[in-house]
Amino acid sequence: MYTLHIANRNYSSWSLRPWILLTELEIPFEEKLTPFQHGTSSSWTVFRAFCPTGKVPCLHDGDITVWDSLSIAEYVAEQHAGVWPGDVRARAWARSAAAEMHSGFDALRSHCPMNCGIRMQLNSMPAALMRDIARLNELWSEGLARFGGPFLAGAAFTAVDAFFAPVVYRIQSYQLSVDDALRAYVQRMLVLPGMQRWYAAALHESWRDPDHEAETLRQGTLLQDLRAA
Amino acid sequence: MYTLHIANRNYSSWSLRPWILLTELEIPFEEKLTPFQHGTSSSWTVFRAFCPTGKVPCLHDGDITVWDSLSIAEYVAEQHAGVWPGDVRARAWARSAAAEMHSGFDALRSHCPMNCGIRMQLNSMPAALMRDIARLNELWSEGLARFGGPFLAGAAFTAVDAFFAPVVYRIQSYQLSVDDALRAYVQRMLVLPGMQRWYAAALHESWRDPDHEAETLRQGTLLQDLRAA
Repeated sequence: MYTLHIANRNYSSWSLRPWILLTELEIPFEEKLTPFQHGTSSSWTVFRAFCPTGKVPCLHDGDITVWDSLSIAEYVAEQHAGVWPGDVRARAWARSAAAEMHSGFDALRSHCPMNCGIRMQLNSMPAALMRDIARLNELWSEGLARFGGPFLAGAAFTAVDAFFAPVVYRIQSYQLSVDDALRAYVQRMLVLPGMQRWYAAALHESWRDPDHEAETLRQGTLLQDLRAA
Repeated sequence: MYTLHIANRNYSSWSLRPWILLTELEIPFEEKLTPFQHGTSSSWTVFRAFCPTGKVPCLHDGDITVWDSLSIAEYVAEQHAGVWPGDVRARAWARSAAAEMHSGFDALRSHCPMNCGIRMQLNSMPAALMRDIARLNELWSEGLARFGGPFLAGAAFTAVDAFFAPVVYRIQSYQLSVDDALRAYVQRMLVLPGMQRWYAAALHESWRDPDHEAETLRQGTLLQDLRAA
């Protein structure tokens, strides 16, 4: 059985990807959640106990360690059907889109850090963020149109949806503008059983990481904090 | 036959990865090089003609477009043996290390931009860069020790070596400090036929991109420029 190390559900966008992938595909795994550290303890030092990069997520399969969200997807894809689409064109598209998210969308990541339980009004809409959102609209529209939906690369939820799952929460938290067809996709993602479990648990986390909170609040005006006190 | 779009050999670290992978594995492809643009023309606009992200590299296989270095590796791996190691442990390690490079090593990338033909003395060694170099030493040492070398994941050159090929040029250009065993690996990489072809062609490129040049010169003192005038 796989062991998947993750951090706080409220903040950890990288953790969400393999977690939602395994969960939606009903691939059994044991979850180990270690909260982000602050003060005298650093996340890197604590996470190094289970992951060579001192980051999350990290998958253990017996004595094999897989320490990145995308390599976890590929590792699991060798052992389970359905991680990537069956059709070669859809699979090439899905892998390219997931890889684009993995190394790109820097402005979206830095201006809209994942913070599931809050609602923000952004102070400004920098040009780089507008470009990222335009590209996101283009990319998602292309996938939904070419492969027929309702998921990004066709009829089934695959790893490319998992890679954009954190963006779904970002769109919700920062009220980012997406086309109507994409708003329907966002809603479809938000009601997936796995996404609902993740979100509910995120709202009930008692940890508040000062660095992640400051990073969020720097972006604009807090409208709502839906997390349990 | 594949068509691989790349940009200037001297600067484009992302282009080097799939190019050296296909070249060292002797997988036939047609190369199309489009130089980075400046002034009134933008690289994004020009590259959009062949790549949806407006970036390089981009692989075309008939009417299939694969637009990221890592998804190109996975696409090619479905059609050709040897892209990843045959052993499951070595393959999981290689994919994790390649993915770590794909989304990480930010300080190494920003402080030591690839510029094959120059030699620089860095002005300073920021803590983040020192951490990246320490991690690089650790990662490469682990691979070489666990899988027996002479390449990172065993006896053969695979995609993980391709993903770190730009780092080999960065170590050479900025005289970065690596352990002795790794220095031997760097030398081994530099004399690969594909790396020698790439390097020789980089030195003979006549294009100078002002943005890439400024980004390099900002890092320290120029010691040597080996490029053809």
